[in-house]
Amino acid sequence: MSGNHAGDLTEETVFTWGAPPLKFGAGACDEIGFDLAQHGARRVLVITDPGVLALGIPHRVADSLRRYGVTAEVFDGVHVEPSDASFAAAVEYAESQGSWDGFVAVGGGSSIDTAKAVNLLTSCPGELMDYVNKPVGRGKAPDRPLKPLVAVPTTAGTGAESTAMCVLDVLSMKVKTGISHWRLRPALAVVDPLLTMSLPPEVTASAGMDIVCHAVESYTAQWYGRFERRAPEERVTYCGSNPVSDLWCEKAMSLIAKSFRRAVHEGADDVRARTDMIMAATFAGMGFGNAGVHIPHANGYPVAGMVKDYRPRGYPQDEAMVPHGQAVSLTAPEAFRFSFPAAPERHLRAARLLAPDKEELADPAEQLPQVLIDLMRDIGIPNGIGAVGYGESDVPALVPGTMKQQRLLATCPRPVGEEEITRILLNSVQNW
Amino acid sequence: MSGNHAGDLTEETVFTWGAPPLKFGAGACDEIGFDLAQHGARRVLVITDPGVLALGIPHRVADSLRRYGVTAEVFDGVHVEPSDASFAAAVEYAESQGSWDGFVAVGGGSSIDTAKAVNLLTSCPGELMDYVNKPVGRGKAPDRPLKPLVAVPTTAGTGAESTAMCVLDVLSMKVKTGISHWRLRPALAVVDPLLTMSLPPEVTASAGMDIVCHAVESYTAQWYGRFERRAPEERVTYCGSNPVSDLWCEKAMSLIAKSFRRAVHEGADDVRARTDMIMAATFAGMGFGNAGVHIPHANGYPVAGMVKDYRPRGYPQDEAMVPHGQAVSLTAPEAFRFSFPAAPERHLRAARLLAPDKEELADPAEQLPQVLIDLMRDIGIPNGIGAVGYGESDVPALVPGTMKQQRLLATCPRPVGEEEITRILLNSVQNW
Repeated sequence: MSGNHAGDLTEETVFTWGAPPLKFGAGACDEIGFDLAQHGARRVLVITDPGVLALGIPHRVADSLRRYGVTAEVFDGVHVEPSDASFAAAVEYAESQGSWDGFVAVGGGSSIDTAKAVNLLTSCPGELMDYVNKPVGRGKAPDRPLKPLVAVPTTAGTGAESTAMCVLDVLSMKVKTGISHWRLRPALAVVDPLLTMSLPPEVTASAGMDIVCHAVESYTAQWYGRFERRAPEERVTYCGSNPVSDLWCEKAMSLIAKSFRRAVHEGADDVRARTDMIMAATFAGMGFGNAGVHIPHANGYPVAGMVKDYRPRGYPQDEAMVPHGQAVSLTAPEAFRFSFPAAPERHLRAARLLAPDKEELADPAEQLPQVLIDLMRDIGIPNGIGAVGYGESDVPALVPGTMKQQRLLATCPRPVGEEEITRILLNSVQNW
Repeated sequence: MSGNHAGDLTEETVFTWGAPPLKFGAGACDEIGFDLAQHGARRVLVITDPGVLALGIPHRVADSLRRYGVTAEVFDGVHVEPSDASFAAAVEYAESQGSWDGFVAVGGGSSIDTAKAVNLLTSCPGELMDYVNKPVGRGKAPDRPLKPLVAVPTTAGTGAESTAMCVLDVLSMKVKTGISHWRLRPALAVVDPLLTMSLPPEVTASAGMDIVCHAVESYTAQWYGRFERRAPEERVTYCGSNPVSDLWCEKAMSLIAKSFRRAVHEGADDVRARTDMIMAATFAGMGFGNAGVHIPHANGYPVAGMVKDYRPRGYPQDEAMVPHGQAVSLTAPEAFRFSFPAAPERHLRAARLLAPDKEELADPAEQLPQVLIDLMRDIGIPNGIGAVGYGESDVPALVPGTMKQQRLLATCPRPVGEEEITRILLNSVQNW
């Protein structure tokens, strides 16, 4: 099958973008029964984790389903930071319980990503590794429509409700990778800010830094027109920053500027701040899910994956972990110092959107890093990778984990290799 | 089936939004074969009108389909300003030629709307009037997925590639109405600015005014939270202005400010201006397709429908017509004078986005109308409904046609009745 007519063009002229339909607002999660009934669903599996189950939201969703004549069951076996093994367990459960004609994911990124995988593997033939991104898997495209999946985020962070990908650890290969295809995109994102009112301040802060990184990394990602032209069959989900992802990221940054600090410090009572933050999360997902993220997220993989004994406040204390939003943000100030020269105007504009009142610094490369540091200090994010247990001597062990994320590093607007990643990690041991 | 949990809320807290996936850029239209093959399509009908057929674009699309092993046929019988009769003829043709597993619409709003109807009526049981909006039709929801429809706009105007509705004249009832349902939304919008390079200046100007009205009417539409709370089964496609439609409309207005005049006056050579204008059209569709339009579009129905002998330059001279973009914009200055008090800040911000350098007028209600008048004069839009053949004595005959558009008038931020419409039409006989 040959390429395209415009075969004489050598630079990229095309970008792609997609987003799920959105139902947003207080009470939206009580309408899911209607929405899935409209999709023709009669028997639906609600997929969640035990922590979210305890909050009662999955059963509230199941009630909404039953009110519209839809049979609902709840699976609460989602594993935080899912893996090929935890995906397999969820798929096995779903298959053992008969056939489903719709799914609802209730929770953070782990629940939504697990539901995407369950939907894929119960709708299409083949096994997980057929669909996992190359080179880890075989990168096969699903060849038929999946069942309708409604995604209901309960944290304001990952934006997984907006994206067409899921992330997993492949345990045997000790690598974090994903599945990316437009068919994985939820049929509907139901975003109800009231579900986030009770998030602890520490979780609000960490998850919010994930939003910040999504928005700023996408906004500073390589411009789509600067890649080499791709044939249609070579196009990827992450096509670089573009006029549509910019819209969403800019708005997400403005919402963060307005409401992030209040959501952390007064979130239990401030519906407006919670509304802005979950809107920012969904909007950033509409952006980065198409543009892509770069160095901070690539570094986040080893920073979370090689954790020693860090136990963050506000999280369960039974196992060591670096929350995803901390892992991706701890190297962000230094990463944006590095990427600054490739797109100075974008870095400065991101800084202005995130902190409209910040004074102009003498060194423009320092503007965005300082805006991020001000924010991180105000909301209690640890001071660099040193504060979550890594010293300078750990850096050489972290670097290969970052370098494996070539799909993300390719989105960086400035070429980046081992040497640059080493320097960024070293300079991120302490951020202020 | 009962309502929802949040039944104690009396004001609306929920908005909805949806958009097709987008492939945008020079050469995008040569990739449609790949995209429809990904959707599993094997036999596809390309739907267009004779004017667009003569430009060669539909056959170029058919070639792209064949390169990916997809059988393609072309139907060029689309009627400009489609009706129940022209929809029926297109459906009859499609059905007589066997079964299709995908459609491509190539053209303006008429072709895209006709393809939506053909897709609906060849995918679902029942007849046209089952699906037409109440009270004209029975307002039934399609109960199954339609076939994938790829929409390829060739004018920068209607934004029909972005929306989940189609508009038609019901000839026997002499009324213009539509079908609105999320299943009608194209599976993919392929927006290729190079397809618009040869549009004549007059067509560029009229179609562009449709974009302006989409963006400004949506942006000034009643805020979604000011409607009474709806049960899920009562929600409509047009939910009022909201944070997502605002994003798209604001960007559309900025693109118009930058490039509309250049697209009209230098469009044959100015790829950048053409790119901005077709992006503005698609973006405005992403906005108004969810928020809704109000008085100017409601007036556009009788102004176009009751045409006497106006024959605009740049259009075929064989029949009298008021181009859609003229019909909807000729009463816009006066309509926005009327709606101003209901949302002054939004009207002023729209004026600033459309004309950042315009001086501030003493009367703020005059700012947006004057910005529109400056633009209309610069690009050669007729001076009011008087210039397309209507005098003051015609106004009483026009009013009922506007009043039939209650679905649109309900979106106006200020209550509007016959008296107000009469005054708006009278004051729009001459705009400057």
